[in-house]
Amino acid sequence: MEFQRVDLDHLRQRALLKWGRWPEGVISLSVADIDYPPPPEIKEAVAQWLSQDRTPYGHYQGEMELREQLAQKVTKENGIPATPEDILLVPGTMFAIFLVCYLFLRPGEEAVLSPSPVYGPFWKNVEATGAAAVPHDLEMQSGFLFRRDTLEGLVNTRTRLIMVCNPHNPTGRVLGEKDLQHIAKAALEGDLVIFSDELYEDMVFEGQHLSIASLAPEIAKRTITVFGFSKALGIPGYRVAYMVVPGGLRNRVLEATRRIIVHTDTLAQAAALGSLRARTWWVPALLKHLRQMRDLAVERIGEISGMNCQRPQATPFLFPEVKGLGMSSEETARFLLEKAKVVVQPGNQFGQAGEGFIRLNIATSREVLEEALERIQKAVSELSS
Amino acid sequence: MEFQRVDLDHLRQRALLKWGRWPEGVISLSVADIDYPPPPEIKEAVAQWLSQDRTPYGHYQGEMELREQLAQKVTKENGIPATPEDILLVPGTMFAIFLVCYLFLRPGEEAVLSPSPVYGPFWKNVEATGAAAVPHDLEMQSGFLFRRDTLEGLVNTRTRLIMVCNPHNPTGRVLGEKDLQHIAKAALEGDLVIFSDELYEDMVFEGQHLSIASLAPEIAKRTITVFGFSKALGIPGYRVAYMVVPGGLRNRVLEATRRIIVHTDTLAQAAALGSLRARTWWVPALLKHLRQMRDLAVERIGEISGMNCQRPQATPFLFPEVKGLGMSSEETARFLLEKAKVVVQPGNQFGQAGEGFIRLNIATSREVLEEALERIQKAVSELSS
Repeated sequence: MEFQRVDLDHLRQRALLKWGRWPEGVISLSVADIDYPPPPEIKEAVAQWLSQDRTPYGHYQGEMELREQLAQKVTKENGIPATPEDILLVPGTMFAIFLVCYLFLRPGEEAVLSPSPVYGPFWKNVEATGAAAVPHDLEMQSGFLFRRDTLEGLVNTRTRLIMVCNPHNPTGRVLGEKDLQHIAKAALEGDLVIFSDELYEDMVFEGQHLSIASLAPEIAKRTITVFGFSKALGIPGYRVAYMVVPGGLRNRVLEATRRIIVHTDTLAQAAALGSLRARTWWVPALLKHLRQMRDLAVERIGEISGMNCQRPQATPFLFPEVKGLGMSSEETARFLLEKAKVVVQPGNQFGQAGEGFIRLNIATSREVLEEALERIQKAVSELSS
Repeated sequence: MEFQRVDLDHLRQRALLKWGRWPEGVISLSVADIDYPPPPEIKEAVAQWLSQDRTPYGHYQGEMELREQLAQKVTKENGIPATPEDILLVPGTMFAIFLVCYLFLRPGEEAVLSPSPVYGPFWKNVEATGAAAVPHDLEMQSGFLFRRDTLEGLVNTRTRLIMVCNPHNPTGRVLGEKDLQHIAKAALEGDLVIFSDELYEDMVFEGQHLSIASLAPEIAKRTITVFGFSKALGIPGYRVAYMVVPGGLRNRVLEATRRIIVHTDTLAQAAALGSLRARTWWVPALLKHLRQMRDLAVERIGEISGMNCQRPQATPFLFPEVKGLGMSSEETARFLLEKAKVVVQPGNQFGQAGEGFIRLNIATSREVLEEALERIQKAVSELSS
């Protein structure tokens, strides 16, 4: 696999959210797409189901052969004992985030986001219900460490939900067993539902991904986990992800899913099946490339005066602090777009604790990444001169 | 095209909701699937986009080339002047029904369902918001006529939404211009949003389909219309439909869609493009066959003592009255499943006014339909003997 083969013309035409919105010459390190075409197994699986005329309404939860394989994967790899009955195909992780907020939050209630700052749709979907999103912030000044001293004080009688994102978007933090046990304890004590977004499980450089639902049966039975293929396999346009939903929460989740979308698109499910096949060889190859990109970018950003970059344990993101530039996150992003013609995401979009940071996506070719970093470095150096 | 080519083995494996749930030997006239494989243009369009690696995130509203064609179609065929900005791709009509209820109804408010009885998800999605669904019932005893004397009294200060289904599921009624003007007048007077489900526009035998949004600009600007291909083209497993959303309502609709699903699956959008290409030849051929099936079924049911069947103007459904059998809708459905091994849908699932009716889907081969009707006739005759 050639992860240097990044076709910018194709991306400008096809990757509307990441590339297509910007004029030619602009480099986008925004949005969570990877810039590589997906593995052939995905195309083959879709073509096969396409040839079989699998066009009628399918099963509400998803096609059985897919759920069987996903249940095995979740049981073996994630340590969450699951049968096909526990698996629910959904049209993307976003839908899963929406769904748990829609079902488990009412006006005046609260959801703790742990860790925070976190992916913007967590905030938006909590707030859309009339509930409040309560951030459990990482130690932003010291390597994004998980704080075990502050979570307890954030749970009160109005709290219904703890929303976990692990591996963590945007900081690239991988939560350890003690961190997860701390969250689990708070959930048990507060009788809370846990929602765990583990979309980046396949993009871990250091450390071991651990599913919070695997800690103990009494945790699993209150935890809804979502996994997906869109990030690591590069198919966000095919809308598919899968949830592990414990028995006690299942009826409400299935009723709503059926009422809102009937079921997930059948061809997107085929893409999920192809992703499962490709994953074993694709993910190690991708990680090898991404690790190089990460190390290169961390080193380069380290040389930029006013910027300070942690080495992420996971995800395709860097989340450097930019406070030394004397601008807000938004101002920094506007400055880099204007002066460096590089698109980055302002850290405050992930919550107040992300203010003073920016998020960069490194999942592109060495050539594109080096060019982007060079431009950033040049723009910043002109700023201080 | 051979609409007699109905492959029951394939359907039992693939059409999980319509066929797969029932033991072999049972004939399903339930669910809204048609039993024919879809036209080849759909497969070709999906295969083409698949080969182009259109896997990144696309446009939130849908791919531009598709929205351009849909805007043209809606302008020319439906008389709703539309640009690509007015078109929103969604993962199915169900999602559109959910979305308008989610956005425009709050607890204690009301939505008028006109006409009623109507497709169950209208009721469920209204009630899920905490609002009340207020049925504007058809004249059930005389050909499902639209009642212009009763609508006004159903609109009050709590009413926010009128939900139209035209052509009408389950009665097969096509609303005329005066009917639609009557609904439009009520919406104007009550300052209501109109939601119009026109999914069955391509399955009209008699009369002319008219979009309520085409009546006048002041109606269009308060009307959200949804169209789709899943029914007439036979691709409900590919989750795609499209909404026409007027400018004044657009921001709320787009914000929520983006937050809930990001965008509609890209390959499902390709299937929509293929459907547009196939529609011109496929729909007349399908209607020719369906008209024969309708006439055959209406005639046969007319011979069954205790059943009374109107000839529908549209949709693949018959909605015969079964009160003469001396059983409720639910009892009749259970009786027919047990004694005739035929699955039908109890009319009360469409609202209280549907009690005493059953819904049958005639979109299958002559052979399958004749067998089903014969079994029903035999079971009923044994009942009365």
